[in-house]
Order: sequence, then structure tokens, then C-alpha cells
Amino acid sequence: MDLVVGIDIGGTKTKIGLVDKEGVCLESLYFRTREYPDLTVYLNKVQESVHELTTRLPKDVHLLGCGIGAPNASSRNGTIENASNLVWKGTVPILARLQEKMPMPMRIMNDASAAALGEMLFGNAKEMTDFIAITLGTGFGAGIVANGKLIDGYDGFAGELGHVDMTLGDGRVTGLGVKGGLEAYVSATGLKRTILYMLSKHMDESKFRSISYNDLHGEDITQAAEEGDPIALKAFEYTADILGLALANFTAFTQPEAFFLMGGLINSGKWIWEPLQRQFEHYLLDVYKGKVKLLRSGLPPKTTAISGAAALIWEDYR
Amino acid sequence: MDLVVGIDIGGTKTKIGLVDKEGVCLESLYFRTREYPDLTVYLNKVQESVHELTTRLPKDVHLLGCGIGAPNASSRNGTIENASNLVWKGTVPILARLQEKMPMPMRIMNDASAAALGEMLFGNAKEMTDFIAITLGTGFGAGIVANGKLIDGYDGFAGELGHVDMTLGDGRVTGLGVKGGLEAYVSATGLKRTILYMLSKHMDESKFRSISYNDLHGEDITQAAEEGDPIALKAFEYTADILGLALANFTAFTQPEAFFLMGGLINSGKWIWEPLQRQFEHYLLDVYKGKVKLLRSGLPPKTTAISGAAALIWEDYR
Repeated sequence: MDLVVGIDIGGTKTKIGLVDKEGVCLESLYFRTREYPDLTVYLNKVQESVHELTTRLPKDVHLLGCGIGAPNASSRNGTIENASNLVWKGTVPILARLQEKMPMPMRIMNDASAAALGEMLFGNAKEMTDFIAITLGTGFGAGIVANGKLIDGYDGFAGELGHVDMTLGDGRVTGLGVKGGLEAYVSATGLKRTILYMLSKHMDESKFRSISYNDLHGEDITQAAEEGDPIALKAFEYTADILGLALANFTAFTQPEAFFLMGGLINSGKWIWEPLQRQFEHYLLDVYKGKVKLLRSGLPPKTTAISGAAALIWEDYR
Repeated sequence: MDLVVGIDIGGTKTKIGLVDKEGVCLESLYFRTREYPDLTVYLNKVQESVHELTTRLPKDVHLLGCGIGAPNASSRNGTIENASNLVWKGTVPILARLQEKMPMPMRIMNDASAAALGEMLFGNAKEMTDFIAITLGTGFGAGIVANGKLIDGYDGFAGELGHVDMTLGDGRVTGLGVKGGLEAYVSATGLKRTILYMLSKHMDESKFRSISYNDLHGEDITQAAEEGDPIALKAFEYTADILGLALANFTAFTQPEAFFLMGGLINSGKWIWEPLQRQFEHYLLDVYKGKVKLLRSGLPPKTTAISGAAALIWEDYR
């Protein structure tokens, strides 16, 4: 049986899986990225993980190759460069280093571009030529497809929309030191920052008055919204408003038929989704109103990113 | 001799020319768009103008077709829709109407997309696959090329970057009623608005204290900068700052190799150009610094838009 290794390197977790030609992830595991600050130790862990996954399957498995999705990845150079949400700094030649350990065809790409490719090959974008995949995890990523092709940019760094400034230079500072970067508002981290902002702005009672920033987790905020916590509700409303404006702005760029939203923040369900739909339509230019869909990924939620990464290799077999 | 009619429909002027296969405009004329609020009268004027231009040339001229660049044009529908800078409101089926009068192959496109195509065929982008043309006239337009192809979007309205909001909903209102739209800052009109803003913010002496908004023209502002008028200098600095931030944001989208800047505002020369280069590099993410060029069009300044429009037809003969 032919399978592809899909690896999603995230700020929090590294997810690895074995993916078949329909995009189904047969076996997967994850570990915490931050526990491996030494790249060599990290790559050993990746290699061991792939080995472990193959042992779980029948003996006739053949690995066609390995696709990797990662923030700030350059598909042309095979590197990760200055990723603010990862532990390794500077330029990391990850493709070459991993290929030494696991000699097989290998490709790397911006995690959101990999997600977009996965959506085209396996998911809900099979018939689309113009769409944008948005990943809302530790950071904010975008994979842009226009004229039926992924946009890489001049040297592979297109789609860094988490670093777009929508505040005329007067907003929150991101991990990359850019003022007002969208990622500082719309991401798992951004939502936590917004909880603190709302606590500073309003005097409502809230469970978050007794939780520190470091002890705050995204799931707690969703839970608090379920319980009617006014600070949690205000934080989701604020986040959805900025995301709605951002997606309306992006529409003016390539006029996608749809946005596919994925990642931790989207798992907050209706608390983010309902205000987002409303604010997005509100901000859209008249010429676009009613024409742009906000959709969820067509891939299984837990292994979306793994299937996306595997699509980098499966693409060559279509 | 084979020639193509190129028509640039602008908020202020309509420019018409006859363009050869190298993109050279052999004959041209213009008239004021606003003087023809009735579409039928306008189209008669266009037809007469084309006829007049052909009479200026030797008898063996053969017109291959007609390309039109216009704000808010839909290439797929052959229409201009809700253009805030034009006198005709709603949806204008301009291609069908003009073809009744002048039966020949005809295409229409967003003026900035036409400019981008002109730059690819005839200008300084012949070797480029990823670049953006920005037109700074009465409004703000963008023609985006990625993977060697113009981006049209889902139904032909990509590149409406003049309506991107960079102020989190708290900025100037544009002609389309969008708050904070870039066009309200960075365009011939935006520069005039900034003169008023600077007069309101500062108390410097300035020739503009005795000129009304309606009597204010872009050329006067350039002239005033030459004379050291502090309000004019502040207005250019402010405009360049916002444009620099906008182009840095756009870079995060498709990572172009270059921006080509054209239109009235760029004719202000160093007053806009020098602060723009500086602020653009300042706002660029580190991963892009030093990699993105700000360039002028490679087409003759007075007929850039005409050649761009003609490229819509010449493209088919390559």
C-alpha cells in the first residue's frame, strides 16, 4: 500500500501521520514542539515517530515521500525562516537535514498553503480555482489559490497575512515586532491578549479576573462563553469583528469564491462563527456581498493539517 | 498596418489611442469624462474619436480590436459596476453597447489590471511572473500578477485594493461609503483631503489657506512642495507613509518581485517617491526586506494607460 508521511510543525504541537491517496490519515501521533529546542534531537524524534507509525500498519506499506507544513516555510529554499512561533531561530534548513535521516522525496510549504492544497486535492475545494485557506492556530496563516494555482510569491513567502497591519501602525506588537499585525489579534494567542484587553477596558465580573495570562487556555475561553461570561463574549465579538474586516480586505485582493477556516480558534464554534459571518458581510464591498462563502475544511478536523502536508507529495500522483 | 484601439476610462479624463504591436501609441486624444453623463452621448463621442484618430494615419490601417481599461470593470461580464469615480451609476453594460457602434473584437478590464498586462507585454515586467501594478489617479487601482497570470478573482473583481480598510473601521469615508478605504488617503483625491487635514492639524503658513477644496489641483500641491510649503511637504510625507504601509501589507499577500507605480500622484516625483521608498522598507517584514522593488512603468508616461488597454487585444497575437 502506497502512503505519504504528512508532518505539521506547529508552534504548540508537531503532528505526524500516514496518509492514503484519498487524503485519509490512517495512523497519527503528536508531541510538543517546544520540548525539542535542539533541532537534531527534534529530527530524531520525527524519524522515530515515522518509524513507530509504520510499525502499526501491515508490512506491505511503501512510503512515497514526506510533505511538511510549517509556519514561515520557504518552499523554494526548503527552509523555515525567522518563525516567531517556533523555538528554532534564524534560517533552519529543515528539508535537507530531515532528508539525511529519511531519504525519500520531500517537500515543505507554509502550513496554510499546505492546507489549501489539501482542500483542493481531498476536501471541499475540489471544484474551485479561487479560494483562500486561513489557519488560526498559535499564529495566523493563509494559503492563497488563484487561477487554480497556489501563490508562492517571488521566493516562496506569499500568504504571510498574519503580519498585515490594519491599524495604521498603532496596534499590538507581534512576535516579529510588527505593530498591529493581524496575528496579534486573530489567533489563539490574540484571543488571550483580547481577554486581558477586555478585562482592562470593562469592569464586568469574570472568571478570568483570577486567571493569569500564562494559565489561560483557548478551551477555557470557549467554556466561559458557554457559561455566559461577559468578558469571554466580548472577546469573541471583538476577535470576530477584526477577522471579518480582515477577510473583507482580503476579498478585495484576489476575490476568492470562498475562505476555508481551520485551526484552534475555529473550534470555538458558534462563539466565533456567528459574529464572524455577520461582521464579514457587513464589511464586504457591495460588489462582493453575498458572493463569498465562509466554509469549514472538508477534511477530518483532527488530521486536517497532516492531510494538507501529505498533499504536497500526493499532488504529483494526480 | 495592424493597430489596436486602447481606451482608458478615468474619473477625470477618457484617453483614446491607436497602439502598434510594440505597445507604441501612434495617435491619441482625450476628453473630459464628466462632460458626458449620458452614456449614449459618451459612446458616440468615443466612436467619433476613434474615427478621427484613424483619419490621421495612412489609409492601410486595420483595427484588430479595442481594449478598454476602466475602474470597477468586470472582465467576465463586460460591465462597469458601481464605480464611485465615474458619472454613470449602477451596472453599465459598456462592452455590449460600444460593440453595437464599433463591431470589432473588444475586451474590458479593471484599469490597473490592464496596466499590469501592458507592463508584461510592452514594459518593464516582460521577465516577471509575480508583480503588482498600482494606479494612483482619481482613485487607487491594483493589477495583480502571480504565477505569470493576472488574477481576475471569482467573478472578475480582484484587485480593488483602494477599498481595503487599514484603520480598523475608524478612518476616512470613501466614495463607496467604506470607512478607512486606502483610496481615501492615497490617490489624487486623497492627497487633496490630506492637505485639508494638515491645515486642520497644524498652524503653519501655507498657500493652501487661501484655496478652497474645489479649487485645489494635484499639480498645485507638487508646485507648493517645490516652493517649500510646509503643509504640502507634510501632506506628501503622510501620503507616502500610508502608501508605504499598504505596499508592505500587499507584499505579505502575494510577495511580488516588484510594484509598478503609475498615475497622477506618481508624477509628483521625488516628493512622493523619496518618503515612499523609505517608509516601504521600514514597514516590510524582515523576510521581505531588500527583495521587493518599487519601479516606474516602462511605458511612455502620457500613454501608459492607453497601451495597457490595447494589451488586452495584443495579448491574443503573442
